Amino acid sequence: MQVYLDNNATTMCDPLVVEAMLPYFSEQYGNPSSIHKFGSSVHPALMKAIDQVYKAINASDADDIVFTSCATESNNWVLQSVFTDYVVNGDKNHIVTTEVEHPSVLSTCKFLEDQGVKVTYLPVNDQGVVEAHTVKSFITDKTALVSIMWASNETGMINPIKEIGEICKEKGVLFHSDGVQAVGKIPVDLQDVYLDFLSFSAHKFHGPKGVGGLYIRESQALTPLLHGGDQMGGRRSGTLNVPYIVGMGKAIELATTNIEEKMSMIAEKRDRLEDALLKLSDTFTVGDRKNRTPNTVLISIRGVEGEGMLWDLNNGQIGASTGSACASEDLEANTVMLAIGADNELAHTGIRLSLSRFTTDAEIDYTISHFKGAVERLRAISSSFAKQQPTKGGEAQACEMH
Amino acid sequence: MQVYLDNNATTMCDPLVVEAMLPYFSEQYGNPSSIHKFGSSVHPALMKAIDQVYKAINASDADDIVFTSCATESNNWVLQSVFTDYVVNGDKNHIVTTEVEHPSVLSTCKFLEDQGVKVTYLPVNDQGVVEAHTVKSFITDKTALVSIMWASNETGMINPIKEIGEICKEKGVLFHSDGVQAVGKIPVDLQDVYLDFLSFSAHKFHGPKGVGGLYIRESQALTPLLHGGDQMGGRRSGTLNVPYIVGMGKAIELATTNIEEKMSMIAEKRDRLEDALLKLSDTFTVGDRKNRTPNTVLISIRGVEGEGMLWDLNNGQIGASTGSACASEDLEANTVMLAIGADNELAHTGIRLSLSRFTTDAEIDYTISHFKGAVERLRAISSSFAKQQPTKGGEAQACEMH
Repeated sequence: MQVYLDNNATTMCDPLVVEAMLPYFSEQYGNPSSIHKFGSSVHPALMKAIDQVYKAINASDADDIVFTSCATESNNWVLQSVFTDYVVNGDKNHIVTTEVEHPSVLSTCKFLEDQGVKVTYLPVNDQGVVEAHTVKSFITDKTALVSIMWASNETGMINPIKEIGEICKEKGVLFHSDGVQAVGKIPVDLQDVYLDFLSFSAHKFHGPKGVGGLYIRESQALTPLLHGGDQMGGRRSGTLNVPYIVGMGKAIELATTNIEEKMSMIAEKRDRLEDALLKLSDTFTVGDRKNRTPNTVLISIRGVEGEGMLWDLNNGQIGASTGSACASEDLEANTVMLAIGADNELAHTGIRLSLSRFTTDAEIDYTISHFKGAVERLRAISSSFAKQQPTKGGEAQACEMH
Repeated sequence: MQVYLDNNATTMCDPLVVEAMLPYFSEQYGNPSSIHKFGSSVHPALMKAIDQVYKAINASDADDIVFTSCATESNNWVLQSVFTDYVVNGDKNHIVTTEVEHPSVLSTCKFLEDQGVKVTYLPVNDQGVVEAHTVKSFITDKTALVSIMWASNETGMINPIKEIGEICKEKGVLFHSDGVQAVGKIPVDLQDVYLDFLSFSAHKFHGPKGVGGLYIRESQALTPLLHGGDQMGGRRSGTLNVPYIVGMGKAIELATTNIEEKMSMIAEKRDRLEDALLKLSDTFTVGDRKNRTPNTVLISIRGVEGEGMLWDLNNGQIGASTGSACASEDLEANTVMLAIGADNELAHTGIRLSLSRFTTDAEIDYTISHFKGAVERLRAISSSFAKQQPTKGGEAQACEMH
């Protein structure tokens, strides 16, 4: 059996999505900007996809949704163009974000700091959540933008986006949310939540890798990141990626139709997995699961290096992560765990398991079983764990730990 | 019969390319940055694609090739980041380009002019070609970048890139070329031609829309446009679009293997079409075909509005263009024809026909036949053409024109 539990990194493209995309490669391949039947024949499919996305996040007709190549592009666009429009060509000089954002926000903020922008990186509480009152207290009259992720890729913890939106509205400050881990996983209703910009990405909800979007409230101005042929009403130039836009529409529809029901089915499996793993000694998971995306658990197993655990799970054909996929190649401590106050050693023990609607009960059973064995195997060779255990005869007895 | 003659706007995705991509949607769907078998299992396919691209343009191991979402992104990246690195953080303030670049270069230059950069837009000669000595005479010690397209999307005319490269090398100025209409259509050998950056796009050579690349000579530094998870060695963040990268590799291999042979087969059809259309009265084509991409002809038919011609061709199931696809929705004069000195009326008569290796002889026959009828139909209702004709009895006789 092989088990894919790294759905916060990327997901399997739903075969129904592939089916929806296929006609737009070699049959209806026209450039939608061309004025001939090859071009115009793809318009209905594009319109349908746009409608599917609007509906999925409950955007209004007055809002814009722009297709991009990924959420990294969407995030870069908002941050870099707010810089151009409100710092270079305005009188603002400050951005508020958090310590635990995705690298596409954090690295862009670092880049903008080099250009002279002041950035406040807010801490999160012991639940891994940024508190709305903290956001409020750091907004000044020089603040151009607040950028706070809707849900964490690493912990799944959900920030109080509605509350933060109200604060930003009241203060007259632009509010951007990286919604990559929210859209398609939990209800996102942009008539209920007030934000100016929302980034999202198809490959996190069983669409293809390489297409994302940016929601822009009431079509407000934002200098483009990609200048050119004025596709997408001049907001994002570049020939439209017709198959992937069609695929994103299908994927978001599949993910968000009856989302509450889908959530509870995934959460049931996640909870069963989490409960079983928590029965192991010296383990804990991050954050109250009621305020977490239904598919995610970040578990810490004292004495077990995350990288070692990944290796053992991989031997068992189980794909998991120590954190975000982008950072997986580094042997770094989990930044979110450090941010919530874990010590450095513990922050090396985080394992993120992220399910999808394709995860089966049998896969959960198998994972629980393999995971238990892995913890035994790895603790048996863990010097740090041995040192911390109650000892017999004054010596660590690694073999008696369980 | 339906005939697609708008291959400079976009191409059909080769079914072999679709076949190559398919396994990477729902079977091997891991994130290549993940350290488990789902992630690592896609590495061989990515490596193969990278090799295919290096080989196709004869890049060396010391060079970098970075995958982007399109050539619009590649062009924006070079221009915006040269601005950051050499204007904002350097002592340069000048860019040299041409009047006839793709909008993704021209619009980005306009954007940079707003940020204080001086841009020289060089004219082209009556062949639609920029002359190397002109480039040389406009480079100053404040010039950060020369950006000149390899081949024109509208005319197919090929610029003296090798000569310009030598000039830039001698002057110590960075040289970027938008190679979108060259790569996959004519031989591109980066050991023979000296340039620093080359943009290209898969959907112009029967790959998918939504993936492009940037060649960077000797891996020189260039601030990223997209900051984030440090994919592609930190040069371009964002989860890798595995299927499309695999597709681009396959597409570029198919397009460039025995490219001379493929070129001559396409040119033969193009020449036959062009010769037949030139037999119509008051028609001319832009540029010496020996210095043109083998698939392209831009023809002007006096008295026939390009838009009307497109409409008539479209009725006959033939897809063509008045110029670049991005601009097709505007009723503007062909900018390249204006640039080469055509009067405004004539510049409204340009029709671009662009073939591909999938264009058949039967399609050419059909197009010649339909085109002749279209010219008759449209000239019959053209007041401007009537006025310019030799008249009988002092009056324009539109019905006797042919």
